[in-house]
Amino acid sequence: MLGGQNSPSNLTMNASEPDAPLPTATDDWTPRFASRMSAVKTSFIREILKVTENPEVISFAGGLPSPELFPTEALAEIAADVLRMSGREALQYSTTEGYRPLREWVCRRYAERFGLAVDPDEILITTGSQQGLDLLAKVFIDPGDTVAIERPGYLGAIQAFSVYQPVFAGVTLTETGLDVPALQATLAARPVKLLYTVPNFQNPSGRTYAAEVRRAVAETVRAAGTVLVEDDPYGELRYRGADLPPLRMHNPGGIMLGSFSKLVAPGLRLGWVCAPREVIRRLVVMKQAADLHTDIFAQRIMHRYLSGNVLGAHLARLRAVYGRRVATMVAALRREMPAGAGCNDPEGGMFLWATLPAGVEARVLFERAAERKVAFVPGTAFYVGEGGERAMRLNFTNTDEARIEEGVRRLAEAVRALG
Amino acid sequence: MLGGQNSPSNLTMNASEPDAPLPTATDDWTPRFASRMSAVKTSFIREILKVTENPEVISFAGGLPSPELFPTEALAEIAADVLRMSGREALQYSTTEGYRPLREWVCRRYAERFGLAVDPDEILITTGSQQGLDLLAKVFIDPGDTVAIERPGYLGAIQAFSVYQPVFAGVTLTETGLDVPALQATLAARPVKLLYTVPNFQNPSGRTYAAEVRRAVAETVRAAGTVLVEDDPYGELRYRGADLPPLRMHNPGGIMLGSFSKLVAPGLRLGWVCAPREVIRRLVVMKQAADLHTDIFAQRIMHRYLSGNVLGAHLARLRAVYGRRVATMVAALRREMPAGAGCNDPEGGMFLWATLPAGVEARVLFERAAERKVAFVPGTAFYVGEGGERAMRLNFTNTDEARIEEGVRRLAEAVRALG
Repeated sequence: MLGGQNSPSNLTMNASEPDAPLPTATDDWTPRFASRMSAVKTSFIREILKVTENPEVISFAGGLPSPELFPTEALAEIAADVLRMSGREALQYSTTEGYRPLREWVCRRYAERFGLAVDPDEILITTGSQQGLDLLAKVFIDPGDTVAIERPGYLGAIQAFSVYQPVFAGVTLTETGLDVPALQATLAARPVKLLYTVPNFQNPSGRTYAAEVRRAVAETVRAAGTVLVEDDPYGELRYRGADLPPLRMHNPGGIMLGSFSKLVAPGLRLGWVCAPREVIRRLVVMKQAADLHTDIFAQRIMHRYLSGNVLGAHLARLRAVYGRRVATMVAALRREMPAGAGCNDPEGGMFLWATLPAGVEARVLFERAAERKVAFVPGTAFYVGEGGERAMRLNFTNTDEARIEEGVRRLAEAVRALG
Repeated sequence: MLGGQNSPSNLTMNASEPDAPLPTATDDWTPRFASRMSAVKTSFIREILKVTENPEVISFAGGLPSPELFPTEALAEIAADVLRMSGREALQYSTTEGYRPLREWVCRRYAERFGLAVDPDEILITTGSQQGLDLLAKVFIDPGDTVAIERPGYLGAIQAFSVYQPVFAGVTLTETGLDVPALQATLAARPVKLLYTVPNFQNPSGRTYAAEVRRAVAETVRAAGTVLVEDDPYGELRYRGADLPPLRMHNPGGIMLGSFSKLVAPGLRLGWVCAPREVIRRLVVMKQAADLHTDIFAQRIMHRYLSGNVLGAHLARLRAVYGRRVATMVAALRREMPAGAGCNDPEGGMFLWATLPAGVEARVLFERAAERKVAFVPGTAFYVGEGGERAMRLNFTNTDEARIEEGVRRLAEAVRALG
């Protein structure tokens, strides 16, 4: 799960274990809650982040961008200017679809990066891409519908979809993307309403779909009449290699989710959905019911920032800093960890995926590592059912290189102490 | 249907008539949408507002605060300052519960205004109070549950709840609040999950619950085991008379919704829910799935603005300007409209409720009024099923006194032309 540095005081809930019952009210007031409450859990990672509140802890657990890279001064100038020049519009109720110039910017970006022609009427601005997930679930998911997800998969999506009580079908994610024969078998076994994918630098695994896998997945899904949902929060954060085209290039009805959180800053809660007009119309109805519209002041700030001449330099800086951090972490893991351990080397994004030697369970290691003041997320958190017992998700964006070296040393010590 | 040259091209949906089917996709891609889509309509008012885009139209139709009263300069200074002083925190992921100092401000306000003791852990900051409605529906409403609402009622709430497919039970709203015997009969006839009320200067009617009605409604609902949801977006906008205590004073499990939209500005999308901790915990789970958290930059700006010494003067100005506008509108209606017409004289809020002479239908009048370049919302829009045929909702906050006079004159002409 992204974000949420603070967490509730009781660690009773867990995304990969049976949900602990919520206690009943202690006074005489005991309302009946909706049955969907039992289908949704708080994020396990949110709970883990509590361990990392101690500033002595080196945390690879979160999913935060590095705040010293936020363009605070540029945004401060823009924010004041937006209010002085267009305060009446920036503070008033606004359209559910979102600020049109910002939707046009998204279209221009798709055209520049991929030669993909998208109309502003195919873009809906959302309150973070998390809201895009909630709205898509509202529009598509009936209770009992099957939703196919990557194994391991993104917790925020699982949580958003769970509210609408689907059945999840996990499809194995390999180093080069979804296992296509496994996907074909899943789609052949029963009607699948929707496939959710993160093709670039996936959360949690850092994996990227190869070009031929993109085509195969997009065409397989299209042939089955399944809705393709392609989430791309990290695509602009590529440190090596060349951009690959979205799956949507092979599936014109495909839905793409995007986010300004990694590009600029997550606190403003701005994302978007790109979808066919018939889907956007329905998402708009649901968004109107959900929050009327997204903060228009934030949308205008974002548009002004992205339209200036500073975005290129800003992205170059992010890529340089994060690229050094991932390289440092990969080198340290390969140097420090005992035989039998391993990790991948993502070309972008915020996370890498490391495996532990036989006999070392990530959940046990988590406790030992916490004693040594280093944190990560055990792989089990990202699986519905079994899986990930010897895996770890490690974030590299919010820790400087010296602390990455030190954190990996502590982690390797903890592994050896268990071996 | 609304016709005439000013009417929008696609007025196919209507809150009080059967939903026209959405057209199917024209290409080969025809996904199955969730069944809940058929339960939710776009707001009729949203469609009407298209008529009012013509700047020559005097619009009493919307529900907008007056943008020249937004404190833009103060907010511009605060916005820049928040980013320069705490940019890293204001732009980073944040807690789902909301910015604690802002939650503490809400508690202090309840204490100051009503002597009501509320803990910050009983406050959840939401992305506008509209999101509070969506989250409450998620937590409480199973398909088929009965939800009691005022007749006439607030469309945004009906829309938010409809997503979760309840059965609505309308209870007549009198000039002094809900009809208590009718409420008792409704609650006795079947289990009712939730009652939704707007006790102060209700939207659409401008009516306010009398003190004895507050007590009776709160106690009736409590005895029935029904969840009380009390929405108060307009409570601070009182132009005459004295504040009345919330229903929650007589129902400790009651849930209150609040909004910063009318207090300061709606564009930032900031509201709150005040509820028992057991409810807040569940709302937090659902909010995490819906948008992770509300824009933290906007929360910090709002907190700084509210904590300064300018709020009293700002509210005094709002009350003075809006108070003159409602008085002007009431006087003009009483002077200009033909015999048989009437209107109430709300003590606060943004709307008043006017009735037409026998034989004049508000929907027919709407079309004639549009020809004379004046707009309002026909009363039928606020009823599930029949009702409101000779009623109009008139907004008075976003039109200056001269234009109010002129708009009422045009309206009266249109009525006479029909009489």
